[in-house]
Amino acid sequence: MQPDQLRTVRSWVRQELLDHPGLDNPAPMPLAVQRGFATTGLANWWLPTELGGAGLDLADGVRIVNEIAYADAGTAFTLFIPVLAATMIDLYGEEDLRKQVLGSLALDGGFAATLGSEHDAGSELTRISTTVRRDGDELVLDGEKAFSTDADFATHLVAICREVDADGTPLEGNYLAVVVPRDTPGLEVTRRWDVLGLRSSGTYGVSLSGCRVPAGNALRGNGLRLLEIGLNASRILIATTAVGIARRARDLAMEYAATKQVKGAPLAMNAVFAAKLGEIEMLIDVMTSQCLAAAAEFDGLLRGPDPARAFLRAGALRSALAAKMFCGRTGWSILSTCSELFGGLGYTSDSLVGKLLRDIRYVSIVEAGDDVLRDLVYQRFVVPVSKRG
Amino acid sequence: MQPDQLRTVRSWVRQELLDHPGLDNPAPMPLAVQRGFATTGLANWWLPTELGGAGLDLADGVRIVNEIAYADAGTAFTLFIPVLAATMIDLYGEEDLRKQVLGSLALDGGFAATLGSEHDAGSELTRISTTVRRDGDELVLDGEKAFSTDADFATHLVAICREVDADGTPLEGNYLAVVVPRDTPGLEVTRRWDVLGLRSSGTYGVSLSGCRVPAGNALRGNGLRLLEIGLNASRILIATTAVGIARRARDLAMEYAATKQVKGAPLAMNAVFAAKLGEIEMLIDVMTSQCLAAAAEFDGLLRGPDPARAFLRAGALRSALAAKMFCGRTGWSILSTCSELFGGLGYTSDSLVGKLLRDIRYVSIVEAGDDVLRDLVYQRFVVPVSKRG
Amino acid sequence: MQPDQLRTVRSWVRQELLDHPGLDNPAPMPLAVQRGFATTGLANWWLPTELGGAGLDLADGVRIVNEIAYADAGTAFTLFIPVLAATMIDLYGEEDLRKQVLGSLALDGGFAATLGSEHDAGSELTRISTTVRRDGDELVLDGEKAFSTDADFATHLVAICREVDADGTPLEGNYLAVVVPRDTPGLEVTRRWDVLGLRSSGTYGVSLSGCRVPAGNALRGNGLRLLEIGLNASRILIATTAVGIARRARDLAMEYAATKQVKGAPLAMNAVFAAKLGEIEMLIDVMTSQCLAAAAEFDGLLRGPDPARAFLRAGALRSALAAKMFCGRTGWSILSTCSELFGGLGYTSDSLVGKLLRDIRYVSIVEAGDDVLRDLVYQRFVVPVSKRG
Amino acid sequence: MQPDQLRTVRSWVRQELLDHPGLDNPAPMPLAVQRGFATTGLANWWLPTELGGAGLDLADGVRIVNEIAYADAGTAFTLFIPVLAATMIDLYGEEDLRKQVLGSLALDGGFAATLGSEHDAGSELTRISTTVRRDGDELVLDGEKAFSTDADFATHLVAICREVDADGTPLEGNYLAVVVPRDTPGLEVTRRWDVLGLRSSGTYGVSLSGCRVPAGNALRGNGLRLLEIGLNASRILIATTAVGIARRARDLAMEYAATKQVKGAPLAMNAVFAAKLGEIEMLIDVMTSQCLAAAAEFDGLLRGPDPARAFLRAGALRSALAAKMFCGRTGWSILSTCSELFGGLGYTSDSLVGKLLRDIRYVSIVEAGDDVLRDLVYQRFVVPVSKRG
Repeated sequence: MQPDQLRTVRSWVRQELLDHPGLDNPAPMPLAVQRGFATTGLANWWLPTELGGAGLDLADGVRIVNEIAYADAGTAFTLFIPVLAATMIDLYGEEDLRKQVLGSLALDGGFAATLGSEHDAGSELTRISTTVRRDGDELVLDGEKAFSTDADFATHLVAICREVDADGTPLEGNYLAVVVPRDTPGLEVTRRWDVLGLRSSGTYGVSLSGCRVPAGNALRGNGLRLLEIGLNASRILIATTAVGIARRARDLAMEYAATKQVKGAPLAMNAVFAAKLGEIEMLIDVMTSQCLAAAAEFDGLLRGPDPARAFLRAGALRSALAAKMFCGRTGWSILSTCSELFGGLGYTSDSLVGKLLRDIRYVSIVEAGDDVLRDLVYQRFVVPVSKRG
Repeated sequence: MQPDQLRTVRSWVRQELLDHPGLDNPAPMPLAVQRGFATTGLANWWLPTELGGAGLDLADGVRIVNEIAYADAGTAFTLFIPVLAATMIDLYGEEDLRKQVLGSLALDGGFAATLGSEHDAGSELTRISTTVRRDGDELVLDGEKAFSTDADFATHLVAICREVDADGTPLEGNYLAVVVPRDTPGLEVTRRWDVLGLRSSGTYGVSLSGCRVPAGNALRGNGLRLLEIGLNASRILIATTAVGIARRARDLAMEYAATKQVKGAPLAMNAVFAAKLGEIEMLIDVMTSQCLAAAAEFDGLLRGPDPARAFLRAGALRSALAAKMFCGRTGWSILSTCSELFGGLGYTSDSLVGKLLRDIRYVSIVEAGDDVLRDLVYQRFVVPVSKRG
Repeated sequence: MQPDQLRTVRSWVRQELLDHPGLDNPAPMPLAVQRGFATTGLANWWLPTELGGAGLDLADGVRIVNEIAYADAGTAFTLFIPVLAATMIDLYGEEDLRKQVLGSLALDGGFAATLGSEHDAGSELTRISTTVRRDGDELVLDGEKAFSTDADFATHLVAICREVDADGTPLEGNYLAVVVPRDTPGLEVTRRWDVLGLRSSGTYGVSLSGCRVPAGNALRGNGLRLLEIGLNASRILIATTAVGIARRARDLAMEYAATKQVKGAPLAMNAVFAAKLGEIEMLIDVMTSQCLAAAAEFDGLLRGPDPARAFLRAGALRSALAAKMFCGRTGWSILSTCSELFGGLGYTSDSLVGKLLRDIRYVSIVEAGDDVLRDLVYQRFVVPVSKRG
Repeated sequence: MQPDQLRTVRSWVRQELLDHPGLDNPAPMPLAVQRGFATTGLANWWLPTELGGAGLDLADGVRIVNEIAYADAGTAFTLFIPVLAATMIDLYGEEDLRKQVLGSLALDGGFAATLGSEHDAGSELTRISTTVRRDGDELVLDGEKAFSTDADFATHLVAICREVDADGTPLEGNYLAVVVPRDTPGLEVTRRWDVLGLRSSGTYGVSLSGCRVPAGNALRGNGLRLLEIGLNASRILIATTAVGIARRARDLAMEYAATKQVKGAPLAMNAVFAAKLGEIEMLIDVMTSQCLAAAAEFDGLLRGPDPARAFLRAGALRSALAAKMFCGRTGWSILSTCSELFGGLGYTSDSLVGKLLRDIRYVSIVEAGDDVLRDLVYQRFVVPVSKRG
């Protein structure tokens, strides 16, 4: 990333987002200010340059998301979550499809979404019941998807489905990831979720009813594996939002401490306060290192000789899982601490800390909770002796 | 407490409060359902029988609050916080005043409030700037109080003030607790705070401007010490709300786990889930023990030979401080765990857990945060060798 | 307990135990100083008065153990662990056996031990392989027991066994608790464990090889249930040792802080230090409350109309499980904090804190670890709705 | 580092150190096995190639120390702690001195030590009382140093002193770091500390009494700043020992879990166990990332245009402070968990986990505890807005 690109992001954040009102109330999505991010030329910054994108890598993404989430994590989430669908399409889409979908995202700064989780399956995607069946040159999709961020205003959605034959009998172990244009007949956004935090983002329930797309819209490879691969990117960036939120909370605390008097001196000179903030700074350093280390591993695979194959072999990266788990809980612990630093004010809407607390909660919840991830880490990286760190 | 009194509370909770809508949105206070608690005959249950009260002790209060907070902590807080003002008046009020104020509370199930914290003083009450001066047979009060729950609809408020002479010069170390009727000219509720949780309670900013009350409205003794004594009761009950909320969260989790499938079996049969719930149950047991132990210490002093004197000697009880600190953080940790148990649903308003998480946050914040209380415990109970536990 | 009994314990602790050398090195057991506890007249203080005991209840035991563990937890453990065997014998032993065994313990301040855990079974006692078979009027015991404290110098041991028929076939679900005199032929102490802490106690491996005892030595009822009942007493007292150790660590820290200079003032005046000690004091208060609450529940059953039956119905008490779990982890966390308070000295044998750290570790390990107990609490007290706290 | 260098370290560890007896008992230092590390050609691996060293950077050091500490942290500490003195000499020593001291370390794989902490000063080095005065072409050193690892068998020691004039009056703010050969008359090792863990290392008290060295033995620059710079290297490697110990504990747990039966299946298939090990693996990943990120920052400065100057400007690196703080506490928490995984065995010397627990405790204690470091991070990296992460 060019230094001026990061500077551009920073000034956009400062001028457009930092003091923007209404980021804590559900409003029609995407917000105008979010659409406005395209003016930086960095909308969907990860898209390849040959398709008109900025060609930035995930380490750059970490820096960008850190800046945006400092001002508003919901906006960061809205802007980066298309990376999940885009990564799958980029690595495993037929060339025509890839050019068309990613090219259009690059052109107009639009959005892509992913249809993964289902109500009954939760994070256990082997239990999903959304189906896809082949019908001549077409694929037909049916099912209900529970949580899909950006789905309502995305141009394309990647749906994870279980393949069935003409009779609806599941083909054992066959999962597909299928690109579905938003305007496909039968695709309906059934609800927008009312959420605890991250209220400047939109997460939706989506219904697929006899949705027909060309057979070429199926991505190559097992859909569950592809999803796992794409989640490496989004989980690292979700983890990064925790860094941005924690940095904001730290700065709010320091601002408050500059004038608040305790025992005859500014709170900023209080040793107990200093210990807490020193601790928080240390944790922010560790969170940042982990996000960057995970992004470096991801970028290493992506820049290697055969990234599609390398990622199929690697699947979920330990560093990416660790980033989401660690930043989720550490961010929560930092915000839990910070929400007590402001006295009674911290419990009121006069302070921003309540919003930050509600926002950061999502990190440990979306894209699989810690129970699921702990088990995944154990099975993949502890049981096989050679995979241990 | 008679067993049927607790049963009465339980049925009121189940029938009136448990599924009451609108407990998470600010509405005119007190809510009709809260006024309705008087139908149990237990409004302000701690008032002495000779004044028409139910004469229950604080251990009974712990049981009652535990039941109510299970359904709604904001309602519990609204109903028990008058105990703070009432305790001060009961122990240190002139007999006439005592009879009049407490008698009226007993009669109509009304509310009393306390005016303690100020914006600049925070929890450091030695730094308050609200003043009271004597003017003949009257006291004149001036100042701004930041957070006072129930203040708007209380009939009487106990204001903690710094005494000044006719010129406004502070009389060193003289603090008074003064009973001010709500309809006193010059007393104005300036705002209702918009809060993160506990949204079925009302906390207000209050302005006192030349408020005149009879000199007999001053309670006997140092106002700061009196406040500290009254806080023993309210802190124990605040701690108890954490128990009620935690029990509710546990039961919600068990309900969810009965049907939610994980790896082919109900979540309730999952070993990791079981470990978490076993842990939570253990912590609920410890929280309950601490609230009851603190209440027993409080009740012991109150039933002793000269309670007013005994409390002046004791001041803040370690057990009460420990109850609030311990239940605040433990409740927070339980709800933090629970808010991850429901997957994505737990982040939406479809689940109650988000409300419970926001509600329980108040325990560690109101009536002094942990930093203040840790220091208090250290100075009072660790530095003097003979006071150590 | 008479106040002078507690005073007697306190002076014995101060005069005999507090500065006793050699409490951190394995020496022949019991130590002379431990035998000397009998001079207080309170050896095996829980034995009934009609059998010559002091007749103290478990709440008294909590106070006594708290005092002794303050000086040395290994000594406390050595002195109170006979309560486990004695409780089983007292409640479920034939009258003659009861009189003989408990009477002799009362007479000479001797020791009793329990043979529960086995190497392969760990805390899963349903999997034990020690057997007992009936042979005429006798019982014959065979097996290997892993960890038995006081076993080497106990006069009687209660062995938990699986009953088999003459052919050695297990009688399904039949477990017995059998009193075995230490001098029974075939009973051999096979090793003394070298332990991380608590080095003034002795824990042994014991082998039973064709040990014959009279049939009347079998206690009434299912041996596993009886063990569970006895563990209520010992677990509460194990929990209590954590309180004593934590109090000692606090006092060591305060002593050190009185003279140690930091930033130009004694450490005792440092705000961060104060916060830690205030926190520790709070936790000590909560630990104490829980031990006393659990003891009160235990004593309530014991003093009730039919204690043997009441305990069979109750089994493991939630309050006792909670005491051990909570005090184990909280004590560990307190000592972890304290072991960092002394700078480099705290890592050397010049400071006692290293011993305290190693000692307190046992609380979470003996008589079932937290994983086992969490599961037990879940199955017994969370799954059945009516048992929830 | 060449891949074969790391392989060499690994085989040395496996063949010489892993099952070496006597690593948990104080024995004459250095142990023969430790001297034997020189056979790998990597003793003092960081020394520049032009002086005969292996010229490895700190990131290599992290890999090497991780391997050695897996087998024995005391040996790792013994072998790498000379990096502290060597870094100061390398960057700030006169060329002759540098060549002589570092050259000799490279030649014979000897040891260097640092004399920093003092009994009364603790980690507050501005309060040290060891003095150095100039006497013609010589420097004369006097004082008592509390904790110096490797001091007894080092060939050279770097002593941090306060400069005084001929009358002994301190020259305000003048601190020097002076190289003192071990055989200097007046330098005496006064004691070896008996330590809780890390018992295969030797930490000593050292007395300096009229020790005379050439004036050129003073390093350039403020001695306290130089120490801070050198500590970057040693703190990162101390942090790394926590990673090695944690990895060992994980592997021990997995070995145990392969055969230990719980509920009719190997512990390794138990979901609660899996969750703990998944958690530990995640934390190991984060610890490793932080050590490598800190080493990368250190190496970046060292390979930059004017490292001596760059380090003087940078002082203590946030990443290095964070590495030590984070790995110290995380390692402690991992070992606390692991020490409960083995049931009663984990409390005995039959299991290695007790040694690992005692060993890892040192990470949070040596080279400044967390209270000191939190304050340092606050003052250096939070108060100045531009330094925040």
